[in-house]
Amino acid sequence: MTRLLIIGGSDAGISAGLRARELDPTVDVTLLVADRYPNFSICGIPYHVSGDVPDWHHLAHRTTTDLETAGLHLRLEHRATAIHPDMNTVTATAPDGGSTVFGYDRLVIGTGAVPATPPIDGLDRLGPADGVHVLHTMDDTFAILRTITERRARQAVIVGAGYIGLEMAEALTTRGLTVTVLEQVDQVMPTLDPELAEPLAEHLRERGVDVRTGTKVRSVGPATAGRLAVGTDTGDHRADLVLVVTGVRPDTELAATAGAALGVQGTIAVDRGMRTNLPDVYAAGDCIHTYHRLLDQHIYLPLGSTAHKQGRVAGANAVGGAATFAGSLGTQAVKVFDRVVAGTGLRDTTARAAGFDPVTVEVTADDHKAYYPGATPIRIRVTGDRTTGRLLGAQLFGHRSAEIAKRVDTYATAIAFGATVADIIDLDLSYTPPLGSPWDAVQAAAMAWTLRQAA
Amino acid sequence: MTRLLIIGGSDAGISAGLRARELDPTVDVTLLVADRYPNFSICGIPYHVSGDVPDWHHLAHRTTTDLETAGLHLRLEHRATAIHPDMNTVTATAPDGGSTVFGYDRLVIGTGAVPATPPIDGLDRLGPADGVHVLHTMDDTFAILRTITERRARQAVIVGAGYIGLEMAEALTTRGLTVTVLEQVDQVMPTLDPELAEPLAEHLRERGVDVRTGTKVRSVGPATAGRLAVGTDTGDHRADLVLVVTGVRPDTELAATAGAALGVQGTIAVDRGMRTNLPDVYAAGDCIHTYHRLLDQHIYLPLGSTAHKQGRVAGANAVGGAATFAGSLGTQAVKVFDRVVAGTGLRDTTARAAGFDPVTVEVTADDHKAYYPGATPIRIRVTGDRTTGRLLGAQLFGHRSAEIAKRVDTYATAIAFGATVADIIDLDLSYTPPLGSPWDAVQAAAMAWTLRQAA
Repeated sequence: MTRLLIIGGSDAGISAGLRARELDPTVDVTLLVADRYPNFSICGIPYHVSGDVPDWHHLAHRTTTDLETAGLHLRLEHRATAIHPDMNTVTATAPDGGSTVFGYDRLVIGTGAVPATPPIDGLDRLGPADGVHVLHTMDDTFAILRTITERRARQAVIVGAGYIGLEMAEALTTRGLTVTVLEQVDQVMPTLDPELAEPLAEHLRERGVDVRTGTKVRSVGPATAGRLAVGTDTGDHRADLVLVVTGVRPDTELAATAGAALGVQGTIAVDRGMRTNLPDVYAAGDCIHTYHRLLDQHIYLPLGSTAHKQGRVAGANAVGGAATFAGSLGTQAVKVFDRVVAGTGLRDTTARAAGFDPVTVEVTADDHKAYYPGATPIRIRVTGDRTTGRLLGAQLFGHRSAEIAKRVDTYATAIAFGATVADIIDLDLSYTPPLGSPWDAVQAAAMAWTLRQAA
Repeated sequence: MTRLLIIGGSDAGISAGLRARELDPTVDVTLLVADRYPNFSICGIPYHVSGDVPDWHHLAHRTTTDLETAGLHLRLEHRATAIHPDMNTVTATAPDGGSTVFGYDRLVIGTGAVPATPPIDGLDRLGPADGVHVLHTMDDTFAILRTITERRARQAVIVGAGYIGLEMAEALTTRGLTVTVLEQVDQVMPTLDPELAEPLAEHLRERGVDVRTGTKVRSVGPATAGRLAVGTDTGDHRADLVLVVTGVRPDTELAATAGAALGVQGTIAVDRGMRTNLPDVYAAGDCIHTYHRLLDQHIYLPLGSTAHKQGRVAGANAVGGAATFAGSLGTQAVKVFDRVVAGTGLRDTTARAAGFDPVTVEVTADDHKAYYPGATPIRIRVTGDRTTGRLLGAQLFGHRSAEIAKRVDTYATAIAFGATVADIIDLDLSYTPPLGSPWDAVQAAAMAWTLRQAA
């Protein structure tokens, strides 16, 4: 029987374990989980903070019992401290503080990421007890909730307007706090075009969020009356709660110390079978670099859906499979209050940097026939290569009822198969007046793009 | 200047005219429209009957002014009576009863379809004045509304449980009528698997519709007190309004008389450039056969979205283009009350008939993370080829909030590019807890299919 040891109990690690057991029910799978929350949906945390998910236990993709039933042996509160690839062992600290050694035939590293700490004066001296938070784990979540309840927080400052920052802006607003979002660059959602980021920011403002882009945070420190002062290049903000969500960096110290080769941005370097340079050692998820289908190279692109796929590949190969990670397109969708923004592939700036000759065309098309009640416009930006006509990317913005998340999937699917923009027009997509148009909005955008090309 | 003459003012004809003008602004485009309703959305008729669209004018995809502005010269109430391909002319009757001759350099035939009349005794003797209706034109619509208001119809019998029958069952129920649906075969939506048709029928029953499958209608005739009697093999039904919606047949008499070669089921035979065998004559829409991407052959598959695409190809080629119709997959989506059912490609029975070795697997997966409010199950049936693993089709059923229409599009897109079922698992689809899962429901179904294959 193969002993498969997995470090990490989040998306990548659990997926690896489940897939290994699925393919080889005889494999002995043990997971070292640093905290007490295996297989929790980190992406769901904002919805517990908002109150949409009252019981935090429900954020688990699967319960501990589900996982044990699937044949995964969980070692909770076991933090791996050293990998010994020459001996095929991992040392971990147990809950009682003692040290335990686990042997393995195959090892999957799924240590994930840790919050990046921006260079803001005071951040190193303040923590949850002061009302200053990051957000990456269930313990981070509980700390934020304690600040809200015990400190009776009424005013929050969020540093960072990426998707977590915006989802938390909604969550804290829903929770009754007054929220200010500070973002260094001059738009929210920096991974999307400013043309679509701006109406999203406007929607946040309509819902009472004070969104300040182009604002660099200089310092965080105590203010009077137990409050916090956030200093920026354009003025100071008072807060009871400060949340710093400016991205993550891969958690690779354990792997690097053991001799794992590192790739882009300090990630663990793996091939498309999730193999590290160490014998019998695989890695997956937010701690590794990710193959991008369009760029045909590895970049750092940590996303939950990607971690699941990489974990699945690692798990298959750890039990003798020959799986290959097909690659990511950076597809994402974010709901903020009543709007959804989504994107896949490259946009003008990223495509040009990658050597393409991109053209981006924006159109507005209704989600379904205008005569049927509830029709709502979708703004779509399609990016294609001028020379080859190849579809490179798409971004969508509109009301949450507009089925935007699944419309971006049509583009993502087409890109995966090397489609041209014109191919989108030929697709036989579904049509019924309450849910679409004879030419779906995704096709209307492709038509506009090809017309621009022909002009 | 090329003179492009188009017979028909519905989806195919209008699309042909618009595309021709788009590619060649010098082309002179004239459309002969048999009635006074050019470019109306036939698919939208149920929503005017229901009251969702109070003003029938809104059912027009474009107004007459829009069309004229786009350079289309409309000849309303002009019914073409003869095509003379040797003289490049078409004879039509004008509203005043007189005959007019139109010359052309290129001709597009878009005569569409007419309701099929099933062999029911009495149908040939009864019509709208008696409360017996078909539904294909705006005039048919107005006639139904007159029966409802002037005859104060309270009870309707719908013969045929295809998508129009079911949409009209919803419409008439919403309008306040008591509705019975009679269907000859033993399920509603005969184009889908009975496993998904059955819960749809159950939903109709919950909403008060008396759905009777496996029921053959024998006769329609007058009953007492101005009512109608519908005789079936299992008993009689009384009605104030009878609607017969048992499919359509291509309207090809005009083309056939002119010497156009006919294809499957009496359709006008065209190549994938929409060329008929007659010089300078193209045809598109519900009057022609349709190339099916998976079957690699032409079948009769009349759908509005397909008519738009075929019209676009015909219009392009009529002005010297080299467009090719990529093909249909029979993709469709239907909303009935609060449920949506959708399908694309082949299912077990149609795939086997076409020489594939199909395997169909059904799973139920939530539309988004269960912890986020409003999650609802989607039943998905995926069909793939046992030997090649190729994705052949998918069918989905669930609540109207479940973004089913756009999820079927992911499958339709993948099939268009020759995907295997396993390829679906590799797609980088969007994920955010309120709108999806790390493995989207469409991927959960593909996973189940591949597991079945491996077993």
